Amino acid sequence: MVWILPESEIDRLIFEDAPGGDLTTAAMAIGEQHGRLALRARDAMVLAGVEVAARMMERVGLQARIETRSGARLEPGAPVLSATGSAAALHRVWKSAKNLMESLSGIATATRAMVDAVEAVAPDVRIALTRKTFPGSRVLSQLAAMAGGGIVHRAGLSETILIFAEHRAFLRDEPLHALAARMRRAAPERKIEIEVGSVAEALEAIDAGFDAIQLEKFAPAGMAAVVAHARSRQRPPLIAAAGGITPENAAQCVSTGIGLVVTSWPYAARPRDLATEFQPV
Amino acid sequence: MVWILPESEIDRLIFEDAPGGDLTTAAMAIGEQHGRLALRARDAMVLAGVEVAARMMERVGLQARIETRSGARLEPGAPVLSATGSAAALHRVWKSAKNLMESLSGIATATRAMVDAVEAVAPDVRIALTRKTFPGSRVLSQLAAMAGGGIVHRAGLSETILIFAEHRAFLRDEPLHALAARMRRAAPERKIEIEVGSVAEALEAIDAGFDAIQLEKFAPAGMAAVVAHARSRQRPPLIAAAGGITPENAAQCVSTGIGLVVTSWPYAARPRDLATEFQPV
Amino acid sequence: MVWILPESEIDRLIFEDAPGGDLTTAAMAIGEQHGRLALRARDAMVLAGVEVAARMMERVGLQARIETRSGARLEPGAPVLSATGSAAALHRVWKSAKNLMESLSGIATATRAMVDAVEAVAPDVRIALTRKTFPGSRVLSQLAAMAGGGIVHRAGLSETILIFAEHRAFLRDEPLHALAARMRRAAPERKIEIEVGSVAEALEAIDAGFDAIQLEKFAPAGMAAVVAHARSRQRPPLIAAAGGITPENAAQCVSTGIGLVVTSWPYAARPRDLATEFQPV
Amino acid sequence: MVWILPESEIDRLIFEDAPGGDLTTAAMAIGEQHGRLALRARDAMVLAGVEVAARMMERVGLQARIETRSGARLEPGAPVLSATGSAAALHRVWKSAKNLMESLSGIATATRAMVDAVEAVAPDVRIALTRKTFPGSRVLSQLAAMAGGGIVHRAGLSETILIFAEHRAFLRDEPLHALAARMRRAAPERKIEIEVGSVAEALEAIDAGFDAIQLEKFAPAGMAAVVAHARSRQRPPLIAAAGGITPENAAQCVSTGIGLVVTSWPYAARPRDLATEFQPV
Amino acid sequence: MVWILPESEIDRLIFEDAPGGDLTTAAMAIGEQHGRLALRARDAMVLAGVEVAARMMERVGLQARIETRSGARLEPGAPVLSATGSAAALHRVWKSAKNLMESLSGIATATRAMVDAVEAVAPDVRIALTRKTFPGSRVLSQLAAMAGGGIVHRAGLSETILIFAEHRAFLRDEPLHALAARMRRAAPERKIEIEVGSVAEALEAIDAGFDAIQLEKFAPAGMAAVVAHARSRQRPPLIAAAGGITPENAAQCVSTGIGLVVTSWPYAARPRDLATEFQPV
Amino acid sequence: MVWILPESEIDRLIFEDAPGGDLTTAAMAIGEQHGRLALRARDAMVLAGVEVAARMMERVGLQARIETRSGARLEPGAPVLSATGSAAALHRVWKSAKNLMESLSGIATATRAMVDAVEAVAPDVRIALTRKTFPGSRVLSQLAAMAGGGIVHRAGLSETILIFAEHRAFLRDEPLHALAARMRRAAPERKIEIEVGSVAEALEAIDAGFDAIQLEKFAPAGMAAVVAHARSRQRPPLIAAAGGITPENAAQCVSTGIGLVVTSWPYAARPRDLATEFQPV
Repeated sequence: MVWILPESEIDRLIFEDAPGGDLTTAAMAIGEQHGRLALRARDAMVLAGVEVAARMMERVGLQARIETRSGARLEPGAPVLSATGSAAALHRVWKSAKNLMESLSGIATATRAMVDAVEAVAPDVRIALTRKTFPGSRVLSQLAAMAGGGIVHRAGLSETILIFAEHRAFLRDEPLHALAARMRRAAPERKIEIEVGSVAEALEAIDAGFDAIQLEKFAPAGMAAVVAHARSRQRPPLIAAAGGITPENAAQCVSTGIGLVVTSWPYAARPRDLATEFQPV
Repeated sequence: MVWILPESEIDRLIFEDAPGGDLTTAAMAIGEQHGRLALRARDAMVLAGVEVAARMMERVGLQARIETRSGARLEPGAPVLSATGSAAALHRVWKSAKNLMESLSGIATATRAMVDAVEAVAPDVRIALTRKTFPGSRVLSQLAAMAGGGIVHRAGLSETILIFAEHRAFLRDEPLHALAARMRRAAPERKIEIEVGSVAEALEAIDAGFDAIQLEKFAPAGMAAVVAHARSRQRPPLIAAAGGITPENAAQCVSTGIGLVVTSWPYAARPRDLATEFQPV
Repeated sequence: MVWILPESEIDRLIFEDAPGGDLTTAAMAIGEQHGRLALRARDAMVLAGVEVAARMMERVGLQARIETRSGARLEPGAPVLSATGSAAALHRVWKSAKNLMESLSGIATATRAMVDAVEAVAPDVRIALTRKTFPGSRVLSQLAAMAGGGIVHRAGLSETILIFAEHRAFLRDEPLHALAARMRRAAPERKIEIEVGSVAEALEAIDAGFDAIQLEKFAPAGMAAVVAHARSRQRPPLIAAAGGITPENAAQCVSTGIGLVVTSWPYAARPRDLATEFQPV
Repeated sequence: MVWILPESEIDRLIFEDAPGGDLTTAAMAIGEQHGRLALRARDAMVLAGVEVAARMMERVGLQARIETRSGARLEPGAPVLSATGSAAALHRVWKSAKNLMESLSGIATATRAMVDAVEAVAPDVRIALTRKTFPGSRVLSQLAAMAGGGIVHRAGLSETILIFAEHRAFLRDEPLHALAARMRRAAPERKIEIEVGSVAEALEAIDAGFDAIQLEKFAPAGMAAVVAHARSRQRPPLIAAAGGITPENAAQCVSTGIGLVVTSWPYAARPRDLATEFQPV
Repeated sequence: MVWILPESEIDRLIFEDAPGGDLTTAAMAIGEQHGRLALRARDAMVLAGVEVAARMMERVGLQARIETRSGARLEPGAPVLSATGSAAALHRVWKSAKNLMESLSGIATATRAMVDAVEAVAPDVRIALTRKTFPGSRVLSQLAAMAGGGIVHRAGLSETILIFAEHRAFLRDEPLHALAARMRRAAPERKIEIEVGSVAEALEAIDAGFDAIQLEKFAPAGMAAVVAHARSRQRPPLIAAAGGITPENAAQCVSTGIGLVVTSWPYAARPRDLATEFQPV
Repeated sequence: MVWILPESEIDRLIFEDAPGGDLTTAAMAIGEQHGRLALRARDAMVLAGVEVAARMMERVGLQARIETRSGARLEPGAPVLSATGSAAALHRVWKSAKNLMESLSGIATATRAMVDAVEAVAPDVRIALTRKTFPGSRVLSQLAAMAGGGIVHRAGLSETILIFAEHRAFLRDEPLHALAARMRRAAPERKIEIEVGSVAEALEAIDAGFDAIQLEKFAPAGMAAVVAHARSRQRPPLIAAAGGITPENAAQCVSTGIGLVVTSWPYAARPRDLATEFQPV
């Protein structure tokens, strides 16, 4: 129910590949024959996007059957999706639908790897995925990350408050505590979050009363120092670590006590592989 | 002139991130101030997408200046793009535009690495990028690959002929030479290309008279055997190697004599990094 | 810089009214003549949408000049926008552009009336506008409310947490404090807000530790009781009042000590009136 | 059958509110549960938009059932629409669909109030709704008005002839009868309508032979004078009254003998209220 | 000013032909060179669409100059449009823009031929173009017809009243005069038009008081009989002739006294020819 | 399965004609009645577009039944498509759907006439349809041509290589054989095609090794001379004839031995006629 896209997006996914059908099928004159397509996991993976792939198939007239939902952990060989219909329709959409699931499962699998690495150490710490998706693919990429157990850091600029140094370039000498108070009045229903680049800046931000402090590319020692200061406060802010975190260093990172991992790392994961079986029927 | 997108695509890139402007800028009440943004290469890279980024900036009312065109090889520190205007506009589009260039430059840089590896050995062999882009981003991704020196293998299904085993599943016992002849009549202005999975199949396809033979995941020895047979023909077909080729093994691959490398590898390249300078003016 | 819409929205605004130009102008054969249009405030108003109106005019080839920006308080007679060009272009867009400003200024003016009423009593209390805009006009309506000094309560469902009774219908017997804790872990960067319908429920929600409590249609005495309990907590949540608030009762409402007014009231405000002068040139 | 929108409009209505699903549902982890939603009238109303609301529900995967069609007069408590499906789907679309029906039923109910007031006095006089809908919502608003018994004055500029003073600003000294004759030749299949601002102008327009005369903000006495003159003609034109007409003064207005009421008044009606029941199933 | 399309339509016209630029230009590596394109009439024609063609050129970055406006009668060799810019941009848009003008000028020229044929006999009789344009091209085709001196019969179903036999199939035994009266009340601002298939039916419709009678495929004698009867009425309706009218028989047709010619004939006119000159600069 | 359009295209086809339903049906108050529509061939024709017409009908709520598929040769009276549902829905879509099939069947029938004329003489010679469709209707028009037995010459600029004189204007003195070799390296998977305007140029192009030579407006003798030279080559290129070819001269043209006919002629074919039967049910 979450994996619902505007029909125009479904059509975009189909028609960017096949505006006029599969020329090869037409030139072979096999389009009127009927067949069955079954897709299975070739690699182990966390599946994502199968609901969209099924909708693409239905849009070109196939009967599609979802074997497993997005979010499932699949072993090699596990069934994913099957479809029956004309060869023209099967070939029109097969590779686009498969590619979609492979790309999104890549993101879901990578996200899950980070989630697992973190939860082993700190079960309450979440992995929040950034806005840095491939251009034009925000919603699909973030849905894939959620299928892998991640949450959305920011869906976009218009919904959350996150102060970068580039924002502060436009302030004169306003102290951070004045800024925090002013922004809390301006946006009382949002957490006021600030990105900092040094321990000193982080401590200042904590004392200024921000709701969340995002540490950009901190070493573990720095994270730990910030966490310690935060915990000394009556009302400790959320400490989020961002920049350069991977499944390899995530455990070390969260063992410092930080409360959230912010990452773009899973977006550039290599696609996972699906195997195809085609049979005339 | 090639980097021209429909305005609706420009708007999609802007508004997926900021449907209602940057909330942080609004809450800080800095939107009316004016500033200057300069983007530079942080890594070495082949630049891609700067023309689109500039158009995004102009769409929100900034004055943008392209310092370097897509396709250029940049050293760290090289200027890329600058813009001036209100803080509201700068913050609305800055990260989206930067992210676009970083993602596309990742593809361009990875493509260029393969092109360089191949050209060092075989100057006439091209790198052709497949349809397996991130879903919904075909045109941008293929433009980035072209900026890196690649060519387009297939923009989509409706324009070129490429026979997969999944197509042949719908044929009865038609021999390959009959298929080739039939398809040449059906599509006289296109090259008739076939993907094969074994040396035996490749030799049969060569003898059947296909215009191009795509070898899917062949070892170098297999490639060499196919090339040798092709060259023995009066009219040698194009031999293309696909599947699992990277900058590391590309040289070995093309030294077998194949005529084209078909790859999706650069599409999942990590983004390159740009540095930002923001100044109020 | 905030008042930037996708070009497709600008075109929607123009072409829903005039897909093929103004038939009256064509039948009168006056389209090639040139003229000047000046729009002024007829009523007092807070202006909104003038930047969009100007863009609509430019899209059909007029020279447009913005005399006053969105957000300004105008006296009757104050200049708003002028344009010059062909009669065909002027008549194509004139009424649509005027109607847009009149409708949006209605929202901005009504919002400002509430803001003024509230700020006179409680300068730190903001007016937050809901999602209940006219269907399909979310962004325009919320921009108009911001021009009137309001803020956005929620731009949509995908960005903020607000628990309704209709959500809780799907919970078994989970106590509120468990729900609050569970949701804080699930969404650590968002405030966890809950709507309540009675004082008892509000007190329970405060004790459960929610970040914000939205009181749906409370009488002032109820609001005061909730505020008192909230202030007794070490970390008082935001108390927001929603439902049935108008400029008339807003002062009484905020004098109870609540921290935020949530309203849809300004969206159904009657449009304000602009006067037009047309002159051939 | 009239209440059919392009799929892109249905999607616009859904996705402006919930581009990525309901975050609250996701954070509560209740999305997979199933429930039933029933909507009833809370106020008396003329219903509008239920067919669109049902389509929105089906688009996100719910089973929807329309209990009453647009145009029906409902008493408080009357069933309107019910739906079953996952909590994720129910919450994604519930408030948007409800808000759509509430807003459109506001227009339909207000239109019906004017229609009833007028028909009590003059059964043949219709209420024609103008182009002054909320920007971007022309079709929905006019369909709602039709559900309330109104007709469309003009769907837009490209279809009907209506001469404003602003058009005549581009004419030199052409007398009205010459203008009328010229325009009749130019547009023989359309009625030639003119808006006038004074009785004298109205009489001149009648004598000039226009098919319809729109009286802009006339007092009843003025309307009566114009009607008397019109009736003295062999071929009386349609006399339409526009500007400032409400259910309160409509009866007096039509008792002057005018033949049509032109109004925008219902478009800014307050939404009607629907009650919701949610049950897990 | 009339020839303004939504930007999305301009982009549709460009990108249906060249989603990724001109492959030939890219493969020749000439894209960075600059050139000048000049388009001239090869045939005599009435020009249409040059404003859209110019906008297409500007959209891809060319400097375009309109030499003659739509509606002009051109002799062979007359200049139409010129443009300068990169070879990549010139080749991307040249043929699409040229084809657009050739197609639309075909319609405009054919319309003008009918207009001229009719006006020679009956200067007040207009040529009204139907809805039967090529699917999806209503606005462009009707604008072209207007450039040729025609008017729009109906832009679509939602704006004018035209009763076909297929509508009357749903009426029981209602006599025509009752139908006419009922529809006049239902749509007082529109002319009530009816299509008839025989002289007897036409006379009945005239007596019933319809505002306009459309004669479908009548012989000249039949038209004359209908006109005679209409003229005998105090208030003669418009008599329109439709079906099978061409420039050859139009004069005979209008000499019967009918008041309007309704036709789709010009829409299928062969395109006119433009000549191109390309020069590097 | 090939006749699948984006939903937005289906909607465009419906809503360009009837944004708010059929006003005539509404004014007659017959919309709620139910009826049956049957469409038959009035002329002999090759049918095209029936699948799209059926989808249009389903989109407005009708039950549609396709009696014959696109591509069939129909005798007068043959059933094409039937539908049942409300009068409102039937009238909303009937003429648009019929017009679509009539227009596209015109193209299919004309294409088939050329195919038949050619195949009678040269069974292996195909008819390839150009890009010169009516602006904005590329995909529909080319699908219609394919239904008539044609193939697609070029779907657009971004997919095939075809060198015009206008491209060569940007080359200095590069000889054709160098150009051919250079382009083969640049685009190894495409045939390199060149358009020529004289026999001498054609012979030069053959000797230069182009894969296909397009003869623009050659007389039969010229075609024969080119074919003779091509056949003398070890590896004869495809010789395609373009410009001015019609069913009348096609046989003579292909009897010269050319291998392909390239044409735009069928696109401007007059629509074929369908007959409608309407019955209340």
